[in-house]
Amino acid sequence: MAADARHIVQGLQGIVGESNVIHHAEDLLVYEYDGSIDTAMPLAVAFPTSTEEVSRLVALAQAEGLPVIGRGSGTGLSGGAIASLGGIQISLTRMNRILEMDAGNHLAVVEPGVLNLDLDTEARKHGMRYAPDPSSQRACSLGGNVAENAGGPHCLAYGVTTNHVLGMEVVLEDGSVVWLGGKTRDVPGYDLRGVFVGSEGTFGIATKIAVRLLPVPESTTTLLGVFHDVDAACNAVSAIIGRGVVPAAMEMIDSVCIEAIINVTKGVFPADAGAVLLVEVEGLEEETRGLGPDVEATMYDSGASEVRLAADAQERERLWSARKGAFGALGTLAPNYYLVDGVVPRTRLAEMLGDVERIARKYNLLVANVFHAGDGNLHPCLLFDEREAGAAERAVKAGGEMLEVCVAMGGTLTGEHGVGLEKKAYMPLVFTGEDMEAMERVRDAFSPSGRFNPGKIFPGGPEYDHAAQRSAVSSAGPAAYI
Amino acid sequence: MAADARHIVQGLQGIVGESNVIHHAEDLLVYEYDGSIDTAMPLAVAFPTSTEEVSRLVALAQAEGLPVIGRGSGTGLSGGAIASLGGIQISLTRMNRILEMDAGNHLAVVEPGVLNLDLDTEARKHGMRYAPDPSSQRACSLGGNVAENAGGPHCLAYGVTTNHVLGMEVVLEDGSVVWLGGKTRDVPGYDLRGVFVGSEGTFGIATKIAVRLLPVPESTTTLLGVFHDVDAACNAVSAIIGRGVVPAAMEMIDSVCIEAIINVTKGVFPADAGAVLLVEVEGLEEETRGLGPDVEATMYDSGASEVRLAADAQERERLWSARKGAFGALGTLAPNYYLVDGVVPRTRLAEMLGDVERIARKYNLLVANVFHAGDGNLHPCLLFDEREAGAAERAVKAGGEMLEVCVAMGGTLTGEHGVGLEKKAYMPLVFTGEDMEAMERVRDAFSPSGRFNPGKIFPGGPEYDHAAQRSAVSSAGPAAYI
Repeated sequence: MAADARHIVQGLQGIVGESNVIHHAEDLLVYEYDGSIDTAMPLAVAFPTSTEEVSRLVALAQAEGLPVIGRGSGTGLSGGAIASLGGIQISLTRMNRILEMDAGNHLAVVEPGVLNLDLDTEARKHGMRYAPDPSSQRACSLGGNVAENAGGPHCLAYGVTTNHVLGMEVVLEDGSVVWLGGKTRDVPGYDLRGVFVGSEGTFGIATKIAVRLLPVPESTTTLLGVFHDVDAACNAVSAIIGRGVVPAAMEMIDSVCIEAIINVTKGVFPADAGAVLLVEVEGLEEETRGLGPDVEATMYDSGASEVRLAADAQERERLWSARKGAFGALGTLAPNYYLVDGVVPRTRLAEMLGDVERIARKYNLLVANVFHAGDGNLHPCLLFDEREAGAAERAVKAGGEMLEVCVAMGGTLTGEHGVGLEKKAYMPLVFTGEDMEAMERVRDAFSPSGRFNPGKIFPGGPEYDHAAQRSAVSSAGPAAYI
Repeated sequence: MAADARHIVQGLQGIVGESNVIHHAEDLLVYEYDGSIDTAMPLAVAFPTSTEEVSRLVALAQAEGLPVIGRGSGTGLSGGAIASLGGIQISLTRMNRILEMDAGNHLAVVEPGVLNLDLDTEARKHGMRYAPDPSSQRACSLGGNVAENAGGPHCLAYGVTTNHVLGMEVVLEDGSVVWLGGKTRDVPGYDLRGVFVGSEGTFGIATKIAVRLLPVPESTTTLLGVFHDVDAACNAVSAIIGRGVVPAAMEMIDSVCIEAIINVTKGVFPADAGAVLLVEVEGLEEETRGLGPDVEATMYDSGASEVRLAADAQERERLWSARKGAFGALGTLAPNYYLVDGVVPRTRLAEMLGDVERIARKYNLLVANVFHAGDGNLHPCLLFDEREAGAAERAVKAGGEMLEVCVAMGGTLTGEHGVGLEKKAYMPLVFTGEDMEAMERVRDAFSPSGRFNPGKIFPGGPEYDHAAQRSAVSSAGPAAYI
């Protein structure tokens, strides 16, 4: 280790203790990647246990002129937690206490390392729940959710992370500590809370997070609509929304994906379906008693050949488990996939799925679709075999072309995975130079030195390594969390 | 007119035409106030009709070193549209076109001068509606709604303005034009849209606004719960929310207010009620058929002596009209009132109402309460007679003390009216100097010169003139819009 590196590690150890700093190359390996496929090695990783320690770590990095990268559980899909320019990673995993649980006011205050599902589980003991449910919720942390403004299947009705975060305590680059937002829904002055959520670690590090809780619904009804093709399923999506119903979740799975799921789990989805639609409605018993049959009738009116109602919690769990296992199951069809995350206006969903199919064919690729249909948020999965020369490159090119079509249709280039390293080159598809300059000025208002998570979001600097995509095999690893 | 003023007026006329500039003192009178009670005279008011004209006006003000104050309909309640340091007012009333109505994608794009109710009315022709409904919705504009992040009775279930604005085109202080957000719910990069909404005109001027529309609910049920006292009514609020029901609206009116309303409109509310709760639930017929009786039963369980169900649209209209006329009706009890806007955690609503009563008594004032109970957003109205020496000052002091109690209870100092001039002196009750510095740095990122709507939000500079409060008589004027 170089003398200056040793000096920095000693500084970190002085703040959090020797056992709370990782700096040997072999120990750092696990911190060089996240849920995406890029890798980069930090100089060291520190594990603070208090706001004060975070503040001192950040001040040290500032004094040494080093990048600071906040890190939650490392499940992000756009490279947000990668130390792409080196520097100090601050891992928040040891700040994992639920500090306050106020069910009466529908409110909890947590440290950033608390896992999404742990918060939800604790809230449920008090009759409440935390609504945003990324598929990675067993592993991902609230701090990471805030950084990426995470979504999830049940965000259709309830909104993404920003709609559930009331305020947070944040350490800025000079080590100062401020509160953005508060514990009430209304806060005077500027909504700095809102602009911090989704800032992908470039503004500062949240050390306490106040979140909204919602009451656990009295009753849940889960329906599975079976369709001959995706067009009919898309019509059902529009018809349900057009009725004025906002289901808690509305997920579409196409025939390629169904085939893969059946390879792994028999009997959940019908083998001859062109597409299935998984719809969940929640509320009082009286509500779901009315809503369930309404959704069922609307699906039949839109051409469903069959609508199944989950008889009990066990059957509901089987349906969701099949849905969440979809990406893993794709491994039975091809050794590799490239996952695209794009958004189109809901009325153009069927048209976009046609374009996805057309572009995949043009590049001689098989495509599987499983996605949050109610939001118009697509996740086309391009299947290929990395051993075939040029196949990975074709997949990446096809994916880029799909994003361009999303934007041309009035949509956008990420639904919920963030920009990070992966999408920064695409930002000019959506924003002018002036739009991005306005964003950079706000970043500078929070972090004038740009030392927090540098090289992310904005074009320039080291790029996402699309060639490495080949290693993103269809495993049960983090890439399966969609 | 001084030579330099003449030179500036000529510059404005050169941009928007002679007929679109007001500069004579007598013509300016109507632009020296808004819905609050402070007044200040701008140098001139310009009425642009395009983004390009707004851009040129802003650039001219910048070149001349003058403040620029965007102005919608002037119904704001915190002095936000007042040219408190002089300068040029840019009135957006002539930019009032609905540019796009896309019912299929639940989306409209409007110019900032479009009135809230006009947008809603146009949307309803397509089966949609615009949810935020400030009581001033017949008069207030979308641009003003964005600036103040306006609320309204039906924001309980649907959220305030920021939850319904997808993006906007904004003119910055150098005349450049940027888009913040977009037309989709998800946008890559920082949520500048969110921090612009509620920035009270200090960041720039929105020239196009993309808003979310919601389908008109199939069915609406309106219930009136009658209670012996406000405590029981507060318990009913908690019990309804605790059931997991989020009504579209839940408004409380206390006995003093009921008395005033009865003086104006007989037969809507029972004369002997200690408090009434106006609750509205919306959804599919099947939903409201279930929810209505559930809310009714919950109110009886919480001690309601009677629950009335509005039989038809006409009866519903009568109930809402009585609620919305409450502030006007207070004129039958006292010639003047001072309106307080504070928020407490919902579980402390009953306790806070006790404190409101206690503080009012201490200052020998009668207090009337009518407010958005579901949000914990209180609007105590302190009644007094300005002809009595010191009465206005006592009301203002009592109001300040109430805000202090709100904050001490974990609440905050404005629910929906903004900070503007009125509340800026109270900001240190909620924020530290460092919190406010973070806000000011973000303001500077948008507007380095601070020329947009200067002297608002942050302590310092000319204060809100509380003595002038005496002229805020309980009229049918803008102050009646709560």
